[in-house]
Amino acid sequence: MGNDVFAEFLGTALLVLLGNGVVAGVVLPKTKNNNAGWIVITAGWAFAVMVAAYISGNWGPAHLNPAVSLAFAVKGDITWATFVAYTVAQFLGAMLGTSLVWLMHKPHYEEASNDPAGMLATFATGPAIRNTGANLLSEILGTFVLLLAILSFGFYDMANGLETLCVAFTIWGLGLSLGGTTGYALNPARDLGPRLMHAILPLKGKGDSDWGYAWIPVLGPFIGAVLAVIVYNMM
Amino acid sequence: MGNDVFAEFLGTALLVLLGNGVVAGVVLPKTKNNNAGWIVITAGWAFAVMVAAYISGNWGPAHLNPAVSLAFAVKGDITWATFVAYTVAQFLGAMLGTSLVWLMHKPHYEEASNDPAGMLATFATGPAIRNTGANLLSEILGTFVLLLAILSFGFYDMANGLETLCVAFTIWGLGLSLGGTTGYALNPARDLGPRLMHAILPLKGKGDSDWGYAWIPVLGPFIGAVLAVIVYNMM
Amino acid sequence: MGNDVFAEFLGTALLVLLGNGVVAGVVLPKTKNNNAGWIVITAGWAFAVMVAAYISGNWGPAHLNPAVSLAFAVKGDITWATFVAYTVAQFLGAMLGTSLVWLMHKPHYEEASNDPAGMLATFATGPAIRNTGANLLSEILGTFVLLLAILSFGFYDMANGLETLCVAFTIWGLGLSLGGTTGYALNPARDLGPRLMHAILPLKGKGDSDWGYAWIPVLGPFIGAVLAVIVYNMM
Amino acid sequence: MGNDVFAEFLGTALLVLLGNGVVAGVVLPKTKNNNAGWIVITAGWAFAVMVAAYISGNWGPAHLNPAVSLAFAVKGDITWATFVAYTVAQFLGAMLGTSLVWLMHKPHYEEASNDPAGMLATFATGPAIRNTGANLLSEILGTFVLLLAILSFGFYDMANGLETLCVAFTIWGLGLSLGGTTGYALNPARDLGPRLMHAILPLKGKGDSDWGYAWIPVLGPFIGAVLAVIVYNMM
Repeated sequence: MGNDVFAEFLGTALLVLLGNGVVAGVVLPKTKNNNAGWIVITAGWAFAVMVAAYISGNWGPAHLNPAVSLAFAVKGDITWATFVAYTVAQFLGAMLGTSLVWLMHKPHYEEASNDPAGMLATFATGPAIRNTGANLLSEILGTFVLLLAILSFGFYDMANGLETLCVAFTIWGLGLSLGGTTGYALNPARDLGPRLMHAILPLKGKGDSDWGYAWIPVLGPFIGAVLAVIVYNMM
Repeated sequence: MGNDVFAEFLGTALLVLLGNGVVAGVVLPKTKNNNAGWIVITAGWAFAVMVAAYISGNWGPAHLNPAVSLAFAVKGDITWATFVAYTVAQFLGAMLGTSLVWLMHKPHYEEASNDPAGMLATFATGPAIRNTGANLLSEILGTFVLLLAILSFGFYDMANGLETLCVAFTIWGLGLSLGGTTGYALNPARDLGPRLMHAILPLKGKGDSDWGYAWIPVLGPFIGAVLAVIVYNMM
Repeated sequence: MGNDVFAEFLGTALLVLLGNGVVAGVVLPKTKNNNAGWIVITAGWAFAVMVAAYISGNWGPAHLNPAVSLAFAVKGDITWATFVAYTVAQFLGAMLGTSLVWLMHKPHYEEASNDPAGMLATFATGPAIRNTGANLLSEILGTFVLLLAILSFGFYDMANGLETLCVAFTIWGLGLSLGGTTGYALNPARDLGPRLMHAILPLKGKGDSDWGYAWIPVLGPFIGAVLAVIVYNMM
Repeated sequence: MGNDVFAEFLGTALLVLLGNGVVAGVVLPKTKNNNAGWIVITAGWAFAVMVAAYISGNWGPAHLNPAVSLAFAVKGDITWATFVAYTVAQFLGAMLGTSLVWLMHKPHYEEASNDPAGMLATFATGPAIRNTGANLLSEILGTFVLLLAILSFGFYDMANGLETLCVAFTIWGLGLSLGGTTGYALNPARDLGPRLMHAILPLKGKGDSDWGYAWIPVLGPFIGAVLAVIVYNMM
């Protein structure tokens, strides 16, 4: 296993540690940031991407997201074998990251046993109003814009270190603007890996893992990413 | 049609998708960011400009705003034919962007049928207190400062990629500081295009499109932009 | 009059337009950002400084603050005649800026006639708890840190355009951290100029202009600025 | 004593002045930012690090944190004598910084005599739910990610001045995402120095200084920092 594959694992673990960390802080009871609002959630995820990308970027391309890897595979920048290796590493990283969130918030999870929906939200995304078409469209649009932005940043020959900051602000913007309908997974590993951990971990009072919804934050981001490559190449 | 004209269309579509997206999220019922506050609205619009400008900047000047294009036409940087082409592209882009907001929030619009004012706010701006003079002045001042900033940024030979970030923070600041009276259109296409879609789209329980106000967020930005060019050239 | 003096006038007008603009938006009734909170106030002032500094920086040093000009005069970077010219320009600019805030918020001021304290807050700062020693110390400390930061930024040979952004984030930080006791004037022109306009303008229901407090946000910033030069030169 | 040691003293004083300043503003009664929320606390600490690092970075490495100094000592970048000197300077700086917060908020502390827990929070951190394992893990994880980020930033040869901004946004992210369980000390000097001042200063109505918890925000950050060096060197 190359260093770059391990970097995808480590980076996605950090991404989900920080990303689901802010959700856990806002949703679980008795934390210092309980109920701290959408600006906290979205800023938390933005800086989660920034920190994870800077760190894993030391040893690899810092995709941290199978939809991003898919786009670069479709574009021909990475091989399909690499896509598979990255995706597996990203899923395993997301499972580790969410487990660390659970360990450090364990006393708070124990206070949340009467709120199975909130508990699930600290692992995986869910729809504000359940509607297959609109929910899928939300995930497609969000990931489409994300990938179009990532592909575009390469154009600017930005000052060293600035591009990662711009990705972070893009994530912040996507969360603020397009995140309110589904919780903006935009990343199959970020959603499915933690959802699996939700099913596995011994959480007192947990409900089901909403497997009926699980395909939307997987398929939607993949579709959005491929669409972005198509549009970018057309122009 | 040149790639730059299409880039104005695509960029303005993304701008309004993200910009009206955050308004829809905050205003429409049952979203995850419902009632999330002014910091969310203003940050959402700021990063909307950033994302749209980085993406469309691959193929064109990323004006995304007929008032910006007017300023550069008055300044002599683009021809009047280009101004017209960009403006049409921007209006069409804004109409597409707001339609995507509607599609992805469709279940939430259906819950909003008892709030026609809120529904209109997810398309176009409106005055906090209706007062022609003060409302027009708000739009003039905001666009004047925006254009003065954009014209000034050219002076600094900024590190690659930084200028777009500064435009985004300028938009954030204008929203925070001057946006509370009219909702800061600052952009004729951003306001009039979506207002037209509000009139066209089949929204259950929608009220009128407030056409009596519609000229203010068109004329105000144009006046402010021209004033900025005059002041900038004077110095 | 040199262009740099006019730039101090224009820049301070823009600074106070945006800075008092956000206060007016948050404090006055019936705005869209009424009661939007401390994060909005502090971010608004931060980007106000950023926008004003980028614009006026085209033609001058963008001090926008007599305490900053005093520091550079003490340091020997500008003459005392220049200090006086800048200070006068800054005061006049602040008076213009706050007048524009009043004009664009006129219908909202008319709704505020039962809140003279709030009305004054949209012009000048005031103490959370009136206490000469603690209030003066707050203004000294805040301006001391501001000037120490500004003097330090020169050390880094920053990427073009980044320094102004760092000043803005410094202002944001000072507002968040040290602003809660006095409203952080940190700038004699920003406080005294608008206070004078509060006394002059025909505001329905206005109270007194709290002249007893007016010397603190003038003297405090001057002391803090000089202290910063002394400490910086010592090291 | 070298200038670099004094810079650690001055920088940590500024860090804690601004950092505990925002906590005092949010927690103590009758301030203008009373109860302003988690986004204010976390942004305040982020910009506190930024300002303190830019200023002290004129004369030294701007560690401002014994855990950071420990990491660089373990890595071999500074001697153990330097580590000890920096750590002593950082503790003394933190004690000065928190004393300035107390002086400028004195009238507000006097109003807080019925809230000993809030008063302590303006000096030192404390657990949201007291649980040795989870609390220690929180401090370890937060500091581990912080140090991994700091070590990684060196890799990018960033545009001048950008790295400190990235550290600030990292701190913002850590506070948002991992700060809700313990208040994220991540820094032994930031916690233990002010806790000592809490015990020493004549605060009306203060409770005990919670010495039983005091070892966690000292040991946790040291462990996390060493772990980060180990992981970074492994790759």
